Order: sequence, then structure tokens, then C-alpha cells
Amino acid sequence: MVEVVDWGRSLHHNGERPTTVSFTDAELSYLATQRIGRLATARPDGALQVNPVSFGYNEELGTIDIGGYNMAASRKFRNVAAGSRVAFVVDDMPSTDPVRVRMVEIRGDAEALTDPVDGRAQIGGPIIRIHPRRIISIGLDPGDADRDPHLLKPFSRSV
Amino acid sequence: MVEVVDWGRSLHHNGERPTTVSFTDAELSYLATQRIGRLATARPDGALQVNPVSFGYNEELGTIDIGGYNMAASRKFRNVAAGSRVAFVVDDMPSTDPVRVRMVEIRGDAEALTDPVDGRAQIGGPIIRIHPRRIISIGLDPGDADRDPHLLKPFSRSV
Repeated sequence: MVEVVDWGRSLHHNGERPTTVSFTDAELSYLATQRIGRLATARPDGALQVNPVSFGYNEELGTIDIGGYNMAASRKFRNVAAGSRVAFVVDDMPSTDPVRVRMVEIRGDAEALTDPVDGRAQIGGPIIRIHPRRIISIGLDPGDADRDPHLLKPFSRSV
Repeated sequence: MVEVVDWGRSLHHNGERPTTVSFTDAELSYLATQRIGRLATARPDGALQVNPVSFGYNEELGTIDIGGYNMAASRKFRNVAAGSRVAFVVDDMPSTDPVRVRMVEIRGDAEALTDPVDGRAQIGGPIIRIHPRRIISIGLDPGDADRDPHLLKPFSRSV
């Protein structure tokens, strides 16, 4: 099933700064405006899948937390439980004429948590928690809204 | 780089029916309305990535063809050339209040073609060509626009 629980915003509570901040302010601001991202996981046999999911930035841990309807029974959850690494992308096209693009891609390790303790009050259910190892963003710099997408420079780094 | 070349529509030419049609008419109609999908590939070491891409349905071959700026130099192209299987999803949220979702996910094998012969006139450049092996769609049946997403039944099959 597609996840449609919209708890993403609630994770952006006004609390302390996280112990580890991997994202830029521009990336966090962008992520907060988007409801859906796409999560890639691999089955143990190597077959890939990619699913639209709702998400939230966990400010305390610096992770991306993904919940949703029937999460624990989902194949993606089981893929992560079996050791799959993950990639996750949030992107949109704020203008189609002229074409303008924005994205944040996050690659990393993930945990399949049936009973998350951290941030549980916000989440309340099984989640996939992504620990970013590499972040690539495009189109989020000041002035990028006026730039031809082919001229945008990805901001790519290990974290 | 993000691919933004919009040649997707041009593949929907009015020609003969493909030799193999894996998609339903509802799926093809939906795909024709969307500009961007997200493609998951794996590096040889197992690390995953997921990228927004423009795409087109290749009616002659029954494949999904993915082109774009700087494709041949991209990591996803090299991943496919190195044997990565792929997953590709096209989805959107036609309504947010109430929440309504639609998607087509395609899992399969892929080719990295530097000089595609089939449909070359439409494409004109290196492409990733996906041969569907499994298709899962949600929210495309008549009446689904009025249904709670949690009640939607995925239409999932091997092809």
C-alpha cells in the first residue's frame, strides 16, 4: 500500500538542534515543503523496488523517518530488516515553462524499527529510519530558480 | 544532472500496436500524463541510488525508455551497463484534501543503450531501456478517485 499518513510536519518541532546535522538549511527547508519522497530498497535476491512514501526529518537524530499505513508488513520494511541499503529522493518541478527542478537525494543505511523509541510521540508506529551517508542536492541555491537545469551544479558530499 | 528533456510524449505516436503490451490502457493513459518518474539502480557494490528522470513508453517494444542530458556519463547509466536491475515509479497525488494517490511501479531488467536503433528518431541519444517484469499500479481504476487510499487494491502482476 501507498503510505499517506501525513506526520512529516510534526517532526519539525521546535526543539534542540540535533547532535548531527548533515543537511543544509536550504535542504531542510525544502524537505519541509514536500509531502512525498521515493524510497528505493533491494530484496535479498537483488531485485529493486521504489515506493512513494511520506517522510519526516528527525531533528533529534538527523535521520529521515518513514512511516505509513501497514509499514511493518510491507516488502520495503522487510527489505530493510534484511539488510538492504536505501536511496531516497525528494524532488519536484516548481515550474514547467521554463523547466525548473529541485531535489535532495539521500543514500545511506537504514533500520527497520517496529517500535521506535526516539520520536515515538511524533511517529507512533513502525518506521524505516534512514541514516544519511551521502547527500546530493540540486536547485536549492539562491538564484537557482532562474537557472537552466542543465547549468545547475549538484551539491554532493559524504556525511 | 537531472534529466529534463521532454521527449516523453513523442513516443506516444500513433503507430501499430506493440508486439508485447504489458500495461493496461489505464496505466498507459496515466503514464502519458506524467513527465517525471523515479528510477532506482544499484552500483556493483550494492549501494542504491534513485533519480528523477523523464521517460517515454516505447509503443513498438513495450518498454519504458529513459533519456536525458548527459545520460551516458551518468552513474545510473553505468549501473545499468554493469548489470543492475531497476525499479521505476511514476506517481502523483491528484488531490491532497482528501488525499488521493495514483502510481505505476515497474520492476525489471534494463539495457544501457548508447546508440539505440529502435525509436531512434524519437530519442536521439543514449537511453536506459526498461523491460518490465513486474508491474504494480494503484488508484487507476474507475471510481478510485473517490476512494480512501488505504482501501485501494494494488493491481500487481508479473509480465
